[in-house]
Amino acid sequence: MSEVTATDLYEVTMALSYLREGMQAPATFSLFVRDLPPGRGFLVAAGLAPALDYLSRFRVGGTDVEEFAEALRRPVEDLEPLDGLSFDGQVRAVPEGRLVLAGEPLLEVTAPLPQAQLVETYLLSLLCHQTAVASKAARCVLAAAGRPLVDFSLRRTHGPEAGMQAARLSSLVGFAGTSNVAAATRYGIPAAGTMAHAYIETFASEEQAFRAFARTHPGPVTFLVDTFDTDRGVATAARVLKDLGLGPGCGIRLDSGDLGALARRARTALDEAGLRDVQIIASGGLDEYGIDRLVRKRAPIDVFAVGTKVGTAADAPYLDAAYKLVEYDGRPVMKLSSAKVTAPGPKQVFRGPGLRDVIGLANEEPPEGTVPLLGTVMRGGLRTEPSDTLAAARTRFEADLAAMPDEARRIDRPTAPTPVVSTRLTVLTTAVRHRIEARTGTGQ
Amino acid sequence: MSEVTATDLYEVTMALSYLREGMQAPATFSLFVRDLPPGRGFLVAAGLAPALDYLSRFRVGGTDVEEFAEALRRPVEDLEPLDGLSFDGQVRAVPEGRLVLAGEPLLEVTAPLPQAQLVETYLLSLLCHQTAVASKAARCVLAAAGRPLVDFSLRRTHGPEAGMQAARLSSLVGFAGTSNVAAATRYGIPAAGTMAHAYIETFASEEQAFRAFARTHPGPVTFLVDTFDTDRGVATAARVLKDLGLGPGCGIRLDSGDLGALARRARTALDEAGLRDVQIIASGGLDEYGIDRLVRKRAPIDVFAVGTKVGTAADAPYLDAAYKLVEYDGRPVMKLSSAKVTAPGPKQVFRGPGLRDVIGLANEEPPEGTVPLLGTVMRGGLRTEPSDTLAAARTRFEADLAAMPDEARRIDRPTAPTPVVSTRLTVLTTAVRHRIEARTGTGQ
Repeated sequence: MSEVTATDLYEVTMALSYLREGMQAPATFSLFVRDLPPGRGFLVAAGLAPALDYLSRFRVGGTDVEEFAEALRRPVEDLEPLDGLSFDGQVRAVPEGRLVLAGEPLLEVTAPLPQAQLVETYLLSLLCHQTAVASKAARCVLAAAGRPLVDFSLRRTHGPEAGMQAARLSSLVGFAGTSNVAAATRYGIPAAGTMAHAYIETFASEEQAFRAFARTHPGPVTFLVDTFDTDRGVATAARVLKDLGLGPGCGIRLDSGDLGALARRARTALDEAGLRDVQIIASGGLDEYGIDRLVRKRAPIDVFAVGTKVGTAADAPYLDAAYKLVEYDGRPVMKLSSAKVTAPGPKQVFRGPGLRDVIGLANEEPPEGTVPLLGTVMRGGLRTEPSDTLAAARTRFEADLAAMPDEARRIDRPTAPTPVVSTRLTVLTTAVRHRIEARTGTGQ
Repeated sequence: MSEVTATDLYEVTMALSYLREGMQAPATFSLFVRDLPPGRGFLVAAGLAPALDYLSRFRVGGTDVEEFAEALRRPVEDLEPLDGLSFDGQVRAVPEGRLVLAGEPLLEVTAPLPQAQLVETYLLSLLCHQTAVASKAARCVLAAAGRPLVDFSLRRTHGPEAGMQAARLSSLVGFAGTSNVAAATRYGIPAAGTMAHAYIETFASEEQAFRAFARTHPGPVTFLVDTFDTDRGVATAARVLKDLGLGPGCGIRLDSGDLGALARRARTALDEAGLRDVQIIASGGLDEYGIDRLVRKRAPIDVFAVGTKVGTAADAPYLDAAYKLVEYDGRPVMKLSSAKVTAPGPKQVFRGPGLRDVIGLANEEPPEGTVPLLGTVMRGGLRTEPSDTLAAARTRFEADLAAMPDEARRIDRPTAPTPVVSTRLTVLTTAVRHRIEARTGTGQ
């Protein structure tokens, strides 16, 4: 797959038309989420790192023009104006890890119109997905209330590449590890894993399986105890661990049944065997709701392994995001379609304490006590700073999370703060609306 | 990303242990969906084509062993038994496009235990995702009742690679086209597209935008009419189309508002302008429920463009799929964990008329009037037949769909047929359960 042709056909037809009409003036597009999905009190900005990689590499070359022509069923010559086109625009963006709210731009692109248009689809695909997954993972961190979390999502994500991102994003919001080997090595995340039921089943008994595993893997091991009967599995695990003189760093994993009750009984059994240092890891369909219930019940679970529902952001697998033209050739523009009205002009988000945000114009003075969220990350198609690190993004996330009001942090029916719109943006919106209505005759 | 290291760490620790213990006897794993999600009366088997590509290429090489060692924090030498390991097993599978039900294997792998184990995560990631998306897209085809559908999902899928699959899978179930240029050229799907609101906004007026687009793109064009006011947009589009002598093959697109009411007014306006051949395309958050409502209301919509909710399988973005060991070294095995009991032994699905299926053992005689669903697609690590075509998969899908009972085809609260379990499989399940309970002391 060429990253350049992984685009909607209409980006190509529009870009070609702009070039034919000589419309290469600078355009600013704003990428934002219109409304937060139910069950979200905030979003975690994510996807900027791969988005900047994409823009840095963007260049129509190779067989791209042939593919465009084939898709349009037109001669290759007709598409040649697009050949060699690369991205040399400016990008202002919210750094990964910061919390964002409805209507706040995650990213604004300013570039000659054909370029800014051609990159729309791919940018949306990266940022929508990654912000959705990071936001879901962040809620698990809240629910776990300090207990470590591990990403087990690779087998359920929308393909392996989405699994790579799920590992990266869950680490970004503070997960302690991932089961995904490729992601662990690519992103420097601690790898974590235990054993599957299949492993136990291939041996003549659970005990033989545990002993064989410990033989192959000297050092701390984690035994999966629910293949046949969990209480017996715990007893067997305890016996093998004691026999082998293991303890600190070891664990048992519960993957089915009433995790709270099983964990309580397992903890008692382990403690009675003198294995106070052996951890209990819980997995099996967990998300922030399941974790929250277990934490509230004070289930003695030391580590939560989450996969399916986080890796697919299952209750909100997409975001209502848009990449909207807000200015062309110095002229602010907006759309009036019913229920999809957009505000004109390049924007800035001014963050006040407690996530009291003001959405204003990019060239406004920050209101007192606020800091601007969007910074310039690319100029002339080149990054203005070296690649961000996961650790830096995590630090930003933790700082914003600490400042967030309680009602947005709530697991059950959270309420997101509502950003205020600045006076200057309100005035501009009204003026542009009147101008368009006068021109198109759509006013009352 | 190496396809080999895109795996859960535990596959590696288990495979290594099997090798160390000399456990290389053949193992059969069965990949199946335990239960259908709410809102699904059937699933469409999908993902086999990329799964076989993956297995054909699978070989631990390059830096894979170093990555395994890094993830496990162990010396590279410890992981060397895995070096060079490739997949030379057998695969039996349901061809893409066939409908499958709860508990029916989509695929069974038989290979030396370490190989069969190592490929688990990647196979699940491909088949779960693709079956989920194909099944959602299939329901849109049912709802559209013969009207063409187009895939617009790339901007919302879980990354661009998931978008490629969404295009392929929606074509597999009968969509007429995709907006995704790379997918159109890779898979030979007709490319489709119109224009975005941004295009209209960069011109001084909607009419100038339409005229410019037609100048760049001679031949049939589709105009987006809802940027400012839809009824006026339709009138403008009609005027431009008439002026330019365009008609057949052209269209207008509605992307917001009450699509049914707007389509009705647009149809009247177009007809009155003598533009009976101009099609109405509807888009904007559609899925099978939205399409069904519009079709039932007889909205004069000619083409439905669907994206977000289909590309992410939004109401069921994952499947409760498992890759379970069912036989090792000739011995049938099963798991007894609460609520996750699996049936032992390699299986076959025998399809009777009206999707009255029997799940039996692989070596059973087909019950009268049934045909087996799983066929051998790989032997000794090599495909037994050339790659399947999308057209062939579509033909299978259409045949199964035509045979499906009405209650499974229903859009609103469908009921899936329940497969029957064969006597021989029931007998084996009971025997294996007793054997395990006797051995582990878990019986009553």
